[in-house]
Amino acid sequence: MGVKCAGADSGIAVFDLNRYLKERAEFVQAALDRVVIAGAGADGRLFEAMRYSLLGGGKRLRPILALAACEAVGGPRQAALGLACAVEMIHTYSLIHDDLPCMDNDDLRHGRPANHKVYGDAMATLAGDALLTDAFRVLARSALDGVPIERVLATIAELSEAAGSAGMVGGQVIDILSERKRLSLEELKLLHSKKTGAMFRVSVVGGGRLGGATDVQLERLDQYARALGLAFQVVDDLLDVEATTEQMGKRTGKDDAAGKNTFPALMGLDRSHAYARELAIAAQAAIADFGAAAEPLRQIANFVVERGR
Amino acid sequence: MGVKCAGADSGIAVFDLNRYLKERAEFVQAALDRVVIAGAGADGRLFEAMRYSLLGGGKRLRPILALAACEAVGGPRQAALGLACAVEMIHTYSLIHDDLPCMDNDDLRHGRPANHKVYGDAMATLAGDALLTDAFRVLARSALDGVPIERVLATIAELSEAAGSAGMVGGQVIDILSERKRLSLEELKLLHSKKTGAMFRVSVVGGGRLGGATDVQLERLDQYARALGLAFQVVDDLLDVEATTEQMGKRTGKDDAAGKNTFPALMGLDRSHAYARELAIAAQAAIADFGAAAEPLRQIANFVVERGR
Repeated sequence: MGVKCAGADSGIAVFDLNRYLKERAEFVQAALDRVVIAGAGADGRLFEAMRYSLLGGGKRLRPILALAACEAVGGPRQAALGLACAVEMIHTYSLIHDDLPCMDNDDLRHGRPANHKVYGDAMATLAGDALLTDAFRVLARSALDGVPIERVLATIAELSEAAGSAGMVGGQVIDILSERKRLSLEELKLLHSKKTGAMFRVSVVGGGRLGGATDVQLERLDQYARALGLAFQVVDDLLDVEATTEQMGKRTGKDDAAGKNTFPALMGLDRSHAYARELAIAAQAAIADFGAAAEPLRQIANFVVERGR
Repeated sequence: MGVKCAGADSGIAVFDLNRYLKERAEFVQAALDRVVIAGAGADGRLFEAMRYSLLGGGKRLRPILALAACEAVGGPRQAALGLACAVEMIHTYSLIHDDLPCMDNDDLRHGRPANHKVYGDAMATLAGDALLTDAFRVLARSALDGVPIERVLATIAELSEAAGSAGMVGGQVIDILSERKRLSLEELKLLHSKKTGAMFRVSVVGGGRLGGATDVQLERLDQYARALGLAFQVVDDLLDVEATTEQMGKRTGKDDAAGKNTFPALMGLDRSHAYARELAIAAQAAIADFGAAAEPLRQIANFVVERGR
């Protein structure tokens, strides 16, 4: 997947996305490993449960986007590391709670037993609660690394909005309440702008903000993230239809079984593939004038769509 | 319960604690009513579930402490209003999750059916998640009211620490894991310093910080809150033994049934009453030189112990 692009130093460099994603995922993994530390205390099992899900796999797409957006506007990636960890912690908590028997009742996640299958429902609920809560501590502590505090505070406000009732949780509720009910395309887009889109947006916009983006840059990053988040969801729906449980490490084919509204169900497979492609191009167009430092963001837009092929 | 004390203006004034608590609870209630607004959207039921528990009663002790600590150091209570709402939102989420069938499986809370009995387990889980997440938005927004942002950011870090794996959730895990296991008094104190103490401390210390407390004042407020939080828990244990379900609006006698470690079980009823009293006196001593503005904090220490008689 090597692509030629304008390099910062050499004029022309080859950008290897697979290598980039792998390196960044390892960088994020090491940071996550430091923020949730298993102790020997009476609460040791809580940290074990938190670490089981937090360190147990996943593409680390949201934290990688946070770091990439920070660097795309010329910031040091260290400035977005707190946010990168926080968004992954919140993403992980949402998966743990979603998998609970009272929610989607899923046994498998990232190719391993779901958290509650290993630690029980009570501990899984609490591990999710703790990951969500601790995420704000990790982000707030970014200020200790010299990131201007007004940027950190604005990002905390954005993160809580993205993850809470107006964002991810609100979207999850709409999703549950609209099962076995036919949504229009606009309603489906609204659902996903909350359920998955909001966390993509705070990853990208927050990363840019912590990196010192101008207001115009933040606006462009927001457009990029909106298109990317929607593309991600369209592809996620496609994968649920077209991929196997083994390929995905989680149960597939379940949307249809649950009577869920999906893009393939609403617009068909071919049109969904084309729509995802259009969204990736729109995402890239939004940051067209960002220069070479934004190349990872552009390539990630391709990657998000390609993983559905 | 009118007590004579030195008033700020009149030299001597009568401080009516019951009236104070009632007025403050109403002030907090009005603020909470504004931060979680039920909408007509597809996610309306989420806000309904959040409001059901958030506005459905409780003494509002933590938010009242936040406001009182702010004023005790000469700050305007408005400066601590975001924190006051946030601690009550987090307290409420913890009750909703605690009552779930996979946790304590309680049907009754504040004299009404528990959240999950009305809205179902999935919605109760999500309403708790949303209250927890939104709490950080509400606190972060304090900065819009002119509170210095470094104070807001420090308080966010404290709040996430108090509520998360190192605080309330960690304490809850220790509590669950030590059922039917005999704890020492020191272990029981550690459990409660996390499970209930940490949220009392961030209410008081955070309220003081937002009101502009000096480092010495913060240290005193921390001592006050540690003693008060422990007193509260001792009394809570006593009430579970001595009060009826009707008096409390929640199921009593359950600690013993669940094989929980409690202060009465460890030190007996009489000694527990005396210990709570000693703690209240210690709390008052910690803020002895705060002057008249700290009178509500002193009286609240009495109130916390008296409610157990």
